[in-house]
Amino acid sequence: MAKKPSAAYRMGIDLGGTKVLAAVVDNNGAILGMAKKKTKAELGPDAVIKRIVDTALGAAAAAKTSMKSLAGVGVGAPAPVDYETGMVYSAPNLPGWDEIPLGARLQAEFGVPVLVDNDVNLGTLGEWRQGAGRGCQHMVGIFVGTGVGGGIVIDGKLYRGTRYAAGEVGHMIMQPNGPLCSCGRPGCLEAFASRTAIERAVRAGLAEGRPSIVPDLLAAEKDRLTSGVIKQALLSEDPLMSEAVGQAQFYLGLLVANLVNALDPQMIVFGGGVVEALGDTFLQPIRETARAYYLQQRGAERIGIVPATLGDNAGVLGGAALVESFLARKT
Amino acid sequence: MAKKPSAAYRMGIDLGGTKVLAAVVDNNGAILGMAKKKTKAELGPDAVIKRIVDTALGAAAAAKTSMKSLAGVGVGAPAPVDYETGMVYSAPNLPGWDEIPLGARLQAEFGVPVLVDNDVNLGTLGEWRQGAGRGCQHMVGIFVGTGVGGGIVIDGKLYRGTRYAAGEVGHMIMQPNGPLCSCGRPGCLEAFASRTAIERAVRAGLAEGRPSIVPDLLAAEKDRLTSGVIKQALLSEDPLMSEAVGQAQFYLGLLVANLVNALDPQMIVFGGGVVEALGDTFLQPIRETARAYYLQQRGAERIGIVPATLGDNAGVLGGAALVESFLARKT
Repeated sequence: MAKKPSAAYRMGIDLGGTKVLAAVVDNNGAILGMAKKKTKAELGPDAVIKRIVDTALGAAAAAKTSMKSLAGVGVGAPAPVDYETGMVYSAPNLPGWDEIPLGARLQAEFGVPVLVDNDVNLGTLGEWRQGAGRGCQHMVGIFVGTGVGGGIVIDGKLYRGTRYAAGEVGHMIMQPNGPLCSCGRPGCLEAFASRTAIERAVRAGLAEGRPSIVPDLLAAEKDRLTSGVIKQALLSEDPLMSEAVGQAQFYLGLLVANLVNALDPQMIVFGGGVVEALGDTFLQPIRETARAYYLQQRGAERIGIVPATLGDNAGVLGGAALVESFLARKT
Repeated sequence: MAKKPSAAYRMGIDLGGTKVLAAVVDNNGAILGMAKKKTKAELGPDAVIKRIVDTALGAAAAAKTSMKSLAGVGVGAPAPVDYETGMVYSAPNLPGWDEIPLGARLQAEFGVPVLVDNDVNLGTLGEWRQGAGRGCQHMVGIFVGTGVGGGIVIDGKLYRGTRYAAGEVGHMIMQPNGPLCSCGRPGCLEAFASRTAIERAVRAGLAEGRPSIVPDLLAAEKDRLTSGVIKQALLSEDPLMSEAVGQAQFYLGLLVANLVNALDPQMIVFGGGVVEALGDTFLQPIRETARAYYLQQRGAERIGIVPATLGDNAGVLGGAALVESFLARKT
């Protein structure tokens, strides 16, 4: 008996610290319906799971389908996740989430297979399946925002490692006596290259009394140093901001070189808020630094360092792609 | 028709800068016969290839078999290798080797399939197949000698990357303003952690007039700072040598942490002359440093950091394992 057409639809859900995004996706990767809600993480796991369910129902309604008719749901969580069991471990942006069986809870609600993975893994998978990394055999995704996250695709499959902990490129040590990272260790890439690191460097410069346009820009943004502020300051050729961003680019270039020397991927895809705001011009110095540090120069021109193309949709499309790869293994 | 039993035999050849080693291996991984010759690299590619052939014939004779009856030959070369074509690119320890079609040349001599790969890749494969990494799904091999080389096994397969350039962990940048590496770049792991780096640090200390037992040990070794000298100096608790080795261990610990944060392997296998000479005591400080820098501490005890067990035979056994995986793909 032929399956109902809607059985081929998948849902991707991207659980973030501030918002939940859900999308119904057909088997060509087209988004048929979406919904979005605030996470309200401060309300704790039960309330957040309720909001995830509501967002999912909203997306299903927008796509004129029902949860039960979906082939499956792929969920990204901003936390370490045991992919096998769907268990979510302590997440810095989700207070109270420690060993929450998100996969089982959602599967009980939805009545279809639910797969849970780390959100950056799913963003990487989305970019590999439908975005900048399409068709690559080996790819690394690097997402630069408040922190720096990463994901790895090897042989056309998300690579998770032994403890499902692979891809944490933001916590590779770039300089053992470097600045303290949010993880408590000195010299992580993230401590040099995240928006937080850029902000720290800029505010330190301001505190030293260095001249800068940044205070004017901050005044218009309630003192929030957003990616938009970074962009405007760079456009104005603000020396303090240029220096801070230049440091981030230098260390991201070294990170790329380290990943190329270790993994020799075909493509490095850069996404996240900072990259989205600054675009390809942000990547050019990264490309130059990286290439200077490749051990093997032969074929270096074949390694692409490119911006992500799916923006906020990478996570939900990655969630749908996760269901797709799950179904492929089952058949 | 059943195959002749000897059809299951494979040969592994390890081409080094100073010696060539060949072994006939049965399908249980047992070595049936071996041969060894000096490489005489200074004589150039043609003469070296002739010596490889002679070594192979010697190993076949020792195993009472012939080259033609072998299932295939796996060769490791101390150079970048195009695994697909068997082409060997410029090798620092093999003067005159630039784009030498070693696979094709040996296949014409032997009349059986010849596979060529990087020597460190094959050492890693050997340790995975029959040594310390046996049974691992994901493993990294790190070989500490004159330089620092590496190899990666993912999902039970040697991982080579897009340009067959993966695994160059010795050239991951550990400190961008660090000492100059033999590759010409500053701050590579190898510039902190190889025997060469240890020797440089010790000789710098001696030049500064620091008290040390090392000059006495060097006198007995024609001024060669061998792994044996390192071992004796450490046993005598020589402060200068302890400091230099401690620096190598610290950076190797950071390297392991970086590889764990990126790849989350199940096992890191340490081989090479320095590790063979110093044994497991060399690894203990590496384990401690590494673990302190794992982002994900959950399950950290499941990650093994262990010494290689195959010694000089890792390469030839890896060569035989390469033939095995080639045959498995063909069937």
